[in-house]
Amino acid sequence: MDPIAESKLFLEPRSVAVIGVSRHLGEDPVNIFQNLINYGFPGKLYPVNPNASELFGIKCYPSVRQIPGPVDLAVVTTGRSQAVPVVKECVEAGVKAIIVVTQGFADADAEGWGMQQEMVRLARTNGTRIIGPNTFGTANAFHSFSTSFRGLDMDRSPIGIICQSGFFFIGRRDFKFLGKGIDLGNGCDVDFADALEYFEHDPQIEVIVMHIEGLRNGRKFMHVASRVAQRKPILVLKTGRSGQGARAAASHTGSLTGSDRVYDAMFKQTGLIRVEDLDDMEDTAKAFLHLPLPKGNRVAIFSATGAGGTIAADACDRYGMAVARFSATTAKKLETLCPPWFRAGSPFDFWPAVMISGRPYREVYRTTLQALLADDGVDAALSICPAFPHIKARDVSGALTQVADAFPGKPVVTWAYSPRFGQEMERLEATGKTVVYPTPDRAIRALSRLAQRQRFLDTVIGTTNVEIRVAAS
Amino acid sequence: MDPIAESKLFLEPRSVAVIGVSRHLGEDPVNIFQNLINYGFPGKLYPVNPNASELFGIKCYPSVRQIPGPVDLAVVTTGRSQAVPVVKECVEAGVKAIIVVTQGFADADAEGWGMQQEMVRLARTNGTRIIGPNTFGTANAFHSFSTSFRGLDMDRSPIGIICQSGFFFIGRRDFKFLGKGIDLGNGCDVDFADALEYFEHDPQIEVIVMHIEGLRNGRKFMHVASRVAQRKPILVLKTGRSGQGARAAASHTGSLTGSDRVYDAMFKQTGLIRVEDLDDMEDTAKAFLHLPLPKGNRVAIFSATGAGGTIAADACDRYGMAVARFSATTAKKLETLCPPWFRAGSPFDFWPAVMISGRPYREVYRTTLQALLADDGVDAALSICPAFPHIKARDVSGALTQVADAFPGKPVVTWAYSPRFGQEMERLEATGKTVVYPTPDRAIRALSRLAQRQRFLDTVIGTTNVEIRVAAS
Repeated sequence: MDPIAESKLFLEPRSVAVIGVSRHLGEDPVNIFQNLINYGFPGKLYPVNPNASELFGIKCYPSVRQIPGPVDLAVVTTGRSQAVPVVKECVEAGVKAIIVVTQGFADADAEGWGMQQEMVRLARTNGTRIIGPNTFGTANAFHSFSTSFRGLDMDRSPIGIICQSGFFFIGRRDFKFLGKGIDLGNGCDVDFADALEYFEHDPQIEVIVMHIEGLRNGRKFMHVASRVAQRKPILVLKTGRSGQGARAAASHTGSLTGSDRVYDAMFKQTGLIRVEDLDDMEDTAKAFLHLPLPKGNRVAIFSATGAGGTIAADACDRYGMAVARFSATTAKKLETLCPPWFRAGSPFDFWPAVMISGRPYREVYRTTLQALLADDGVDAALSICPAFPHIKARDVSGALTQVADAFPGKPVVTWAYSPRFGQEMERLEATGKTVVYPTPDRAIRALSRLAQRQRFLDTVIGTTNVEIRVAAS
Repeated sequence: MDPIAESKLFLEPRSVAVIGVSRHLGEDPVNIFQNLINYGFPGKLYPVNPNASELFGIKCYPSVRQIPGPVDLAVVTTGRSQAVPVVKECVEAGVKAIIVVTQGFADADAEGWGMQQEMVRLARTNGTRIIGPNTFGTANAFHSFSTSFRGLDMDRSPIGIICQSGFFFIGRRDFKFLGKGIDLGNGCDVDFADALEYFEHDPQIEVIVMHIEGLRNGRKFMHVASRVAQRKPILVLKTGRSGQGARAAASHTGSLTGSDRVYDAMFKQTGLIRVEDLDDMEDTAKAFLHLPLPKGNRVAIFSATGAGGTIAADACDRYGMAVARFSATTAKKLETLCPPWFRAGSPFDFWPAVMISGRPYREVYRTTLQALLADDGVDAALSICPAFPHIKARDVSGALTQVADAFPGKPVVTWAYSPRFGQEMERLEATGKTVVYPTPDRAIRALSRLAQRQRFLDTVIGTTNVEIRVAAS
């Protein structure tokens, strides 16, 4: 099969057999079949359980063999001892895509490792592909579909996650990693390169995020990743970096994690964007989803707190960004807002304009952002503002939208502070014109990832101004 | 004056004159006097404004001279041109403590720098102390008092912040830095060493957090800090670390930031705990507020996601912690929970015990935590669990409390994941037995800060088991 055909079976199946459907229900459902019904999955569902004639009002089959229609995807959730015979049945019944959710294979012991090898051997006799074992499987918000045993709350967001853990399907406090998801689990057959190809030409996916414990075929991966990275940004969290982490990964997914420096070099060479941790992964993904790429690394910082400006300037040093130097014209524009003794520095502290000159907060914000983005020495902006969503006069969404629309090539990130962070983040992100971060360090780091991407595109593709988006291809 | 007397005037004044009280009200109040009334400040309030006879129903005075009773603290909020004459009046009227909120001094230009020097000179003629200028001043939740022009939401928490920015008075999404606060602003007179002494013997303060842009008198600071650090943990965020940051700090508070390596050596030598960023500052402060110090660096990790265990193991490497190796006895206890093919590794993945063996989640949690903390090779534990606060059967607060109470010397931190993070954090932290972090990296880093403190106490004080707390002194 070609990757597009495979991805249809795994991510947009028209018919799904779930083998080993649990009859257990309760307040803590871990029931794939029940979840699929709850999502409103539009395809045909075939529960397989020899001990039931019907499940959730849907006719149940004793085995895959008895299912009358074609089966795009079989989901195996039996105990590990039954997994091999079930895979055999599926292959013999002509099923071309199988997800083995069950754990206890290469992640467990020698016997499990042997069973995993046997499943792969069986699949290859007939061109069948397997995702897993030891996995949540796949998820596709655009198709109301997931094989996760944990019920998911999915958004139709253009982000595709490829991972080795169900954690990434569940998501974080303020962020969901899908869109679409492929949890490779132990990765016995379908691997990272395959999964990248599934998303390569998918018009619904603009940003790809990967969580890698270990790669088996580095050469194949590099070949595919360097091609896909030219079309779409690919973020990577590589875990099992250290000796202690590597031992943990071996018992999690049976992965050989390999030398971290080799990975680092490989990611650099292929144009992948390596993130440090989960915060970075979320922060950077949000930046790519919502912001344009800056042409360079010069950040204009304007702040209601001088201390925040200092912290942000430190962060610029840490992440290879430069605090922008404003032109004399820009400084003059800013100083019209301020008390007479005030010299507009960079970072620009706009609080005296509000507090001492008594200018309306929104006017100060609009004039400042406008002046900064108009400056040729500025590639991006960081706004540092208190989160006071309960104060109407502090709502800068309108000003932000107006100015950002006039400078579509310059990303604006925001650090909002105060216990009301969450509401302010929602209010400002609703404009689609900024991403709001909880620290200046994280805001600057996210900008640095965007700048890294632009440098990569400049080098490899030789175009400075155009990010290649699938929507445009 | 001695530090205790000074701290009473600045943090628990019985009478306060506010000079330059604004008559401006509205939905965005920046009015110190109005805030004091709102807090229910129990002392005597004297508004000073030559253009009003009454403010908020309280008699107004044309100048400090006319105030009939003694004034513990004068708060100067006039424009910068009036600040020097007002300070002069206060000093002449015998006021011993002055907070100059006004900005535009060493933070602005040469003229401002001169005015700041003149204020200090005036104060020293009469033994008066000044906090500021360019500051929020002080805050004390235990006294319903703050000179912040931004209305604060304060908790009676045993944490004292010493900073150079009002940001730290406003606080963050899930955390307030006070308790009590001293914003030094430009620090023209009262400095970091003085402020440390204010908190040194304060029985209401157990943890001290500092935000430093620049120190003027390093020798005095080290002398005081190394003494105070033996009584209470002191966390430090040093900003203006880089060239770009140093330039920003100079225009913020007129600080000379100095060489970052010198600071690093100084903090190490005095036993201060240096934090990397705002997240670290919050995470570490929460750990010190709520958790015991571990005896060593061996962390038992148990996780509902194998990937989380791997990430946490990487974090242990990064922050100088060790993934604990369990005894054979412990492994046996854990394996009684699991499917027969399962070998209990470290990190311990407890999900098969729930999913495959079908044991109740709470039982697995309790048995695991109990077995791990009972192991002599374990100094602390990290629990990695999905945040499902809506599922009653997943509420482990009771089990956590019960087990943690049996091992009072072993801190337990938690990484909870899912979009419901906030609720789970509240539920688990309400036990007072754990702190809940948004990533395993941040949980491990916080533990490493606690371990660092224990090592310092072991070395300097020569006691391995007893954290010296003010409450016990």
